[in-house]
Amino acid sequence: MQIVVGQQEMESFLEEVFPQVRGMFAIERMAPGEIVMRLLNDERHLRPGGTVSGPAMFSLADVTAYVGVMMHIGKQALAVTLHCSIDFMRKPASGVDILAEGRVLKLGKSLAVIDVMLTSEGCDDPVAHATLTYSIPPVR
Amino acid sequence: MQIVVGQQEMESFLEEVFPQVRGMFAIERMAPGEIVMRLLNDERHLRPGGTVSGPAMFSLADVTAYVGVMMHIGKQALAVTLHCSIDFMRKPASGVDILAEGRVLKLGKSLAVIDVMLTSEGCDDPVAHATLTYSIPPVR
Amino acid sequence: MQIVVGQQEMESFLEEVFPQVRGMFAIERMAPGEIVMRLLNDERHLRPGGTVSGPAMFSLADVTAYVGVMMHIGKQALAVTLHCSIDFMRKPASGVDILAEGRVLKLGKSLAVIDVMLTSEGCDDPVAHATLTYSIPPVR
Amino acid sequence: MQIVVGQQEMESFLEEVFPQVRGMFAIERMAPGEIVMRLLNDERHLRPGGTVSGPAMFSLADVTAYVGVMMHIGKQALAVTLHCSIDFMRKPASGVDILAEGRVLKLGKSLAVIDVMLTSEGCDDPVAHATLTYSIPPVR
Repeated sequence: MQIVVGQQEMESFLEEVFPQVRGMFAIERMAPGEIVMRLLNDERHLRPGGTVSGPAMFSLADVTAYVGVMMHIGKQALAVTLHCSIDFMRKPASGVDILAEGRVLKLGKSLAVIDVMLTSEGCDDPVAHATLTYSIPPVR
Repeated sequence: MQIVVGQQEMESFLEEVFPQVRGMFAIERMAPGEIVMRLLNDERHLRPGGTVSGPAMFSLADVTAYVGVMMHIGKQALAVTLHCSIDFMRKPASGVDILAEGRVLKLGKSLAVIDVMLTSEGCDDPVAHATLTYSIPPVR
Repeated sequence: MQIVVGQQEMESFLEEVFPQVRGMFAIERMAPGEIVMRLLNDERHLRPGGTVSGPAMFSLADVTAYVGVMMHIGKQALAVTLHCSIDFMRKPASGVDILAEGRVLKLGKSLAVIDVMLTSEGCDDPVAHATLTYSIPPVR
Repeated sequence: MQIVVGQQEMESFLEEVFPQVRGMFAIERMAPGEIVMRLLNDERHLRPGGTVSGPAMFSLADVTAYVGVMMHIGKQALAVTLHCSIDFMRKPASGVDILAEGRVLKLGKSLAVIDVMLTSEGCDDPVAHATLTYSIPPVR
């Protein structure tokens, strides 16, 4: 697997295709087959008690998988999530960002499978773990 | 299974515990073991092209399961999602609401399992299907 | 959706491609988009205590999805399971068969999604529920 | 996490509670939070073409998670699988064993979550990946 879209170009692309989540996510690190993203702790996605909500964690896992695929196949807004299985295991720490570490388990011609582990920054134990399948649009 | 929280009381409870999604969801119908909810088509949860985003569909499935459990066990903000498996099957129709039909498959002492089918209003074919596990807090 | 392979032809096909499970499964009923199969209670797939094991229930869900797809697209041994999400909800009743009711939620060109509910014969409450994705081989 | 059941004791326990799979699985390695198991390539669990079947891979993932939990909480035949989400990503290599590497992501009082990666021995790319939730019986 080789990276074909750089970090800055990817961030601009995300802002363009998902303007409604502007400022919610940041790319931490990209490497072949690996991607780390950050969910900025922000009032929009909090649960009562100051911890990040399940839907915000799902969004983070989903965008991490999306970027993990795009960075290898090029910017294609049409790649879509086919499946996500997510386990919520611990309450996120209050007041800190969530980090998502994605690993591309498979990058096929039409499907990609990505594993994403979510942790509260500074804590070892994962708060959630997701596995996603993305559909890759056929090359024209 | 018996309903112990009425529709209006449940809607007030949702607004209280999730103020940030006020106006996003509505309860359509409640019956023992069954719940129908609506995701109001609104700019906040759209993808490019005017269709509802994956995270918005996840949120709808999650809140439908939450209400499906709460309406039988009473209002307990501490019930939490343990797992969700969701398949995105078709692009939602543009400009219409999404309906979620939840069925409680199991309501145990500590766990509940809920099946949720999502359709674009007026269309038969499902856009997504989710299965969720909720943890039920112990009675004090 | 239209059925293109009859019940008897399908049963012969199953015995041919999966000789090692001969006598384990039977087709109960086929209808467009719907299939009911039976796991014959037999010593090979029991847990201590006389109930059916998890792997045997997985096998039943998998073969039900396989038949649910094949009966619409024709006999193609190359269709493969891409994903299965299964919830085990109740202990199966001892000494009775397990029935699996499959519904084809999506039958696309390259992917099919099938929902399968498993019950102990004569009991209403489901013992398990699975959702499977099958890959459909391209037409040559 | 601390190991409370040794490898030999665990193997004897498996043979006792699952006599029908005797000789199918072997424990390769146990470490706190980690377990590696082997599915012996054997005619019983093959698909046409000599590769391991989906149900055999499910069984391997399930028993790996079971052992991964038991080795920390002690031998309790009553621990049961609540959920499994499994992605089948590549055709297993023909004629070689399958290895399963399990990591315990959470070991709570009543629930454990285990991640299991399956590879064909000698190949790097995973053939399948599963995440399982086990219910832990209450201490008497």
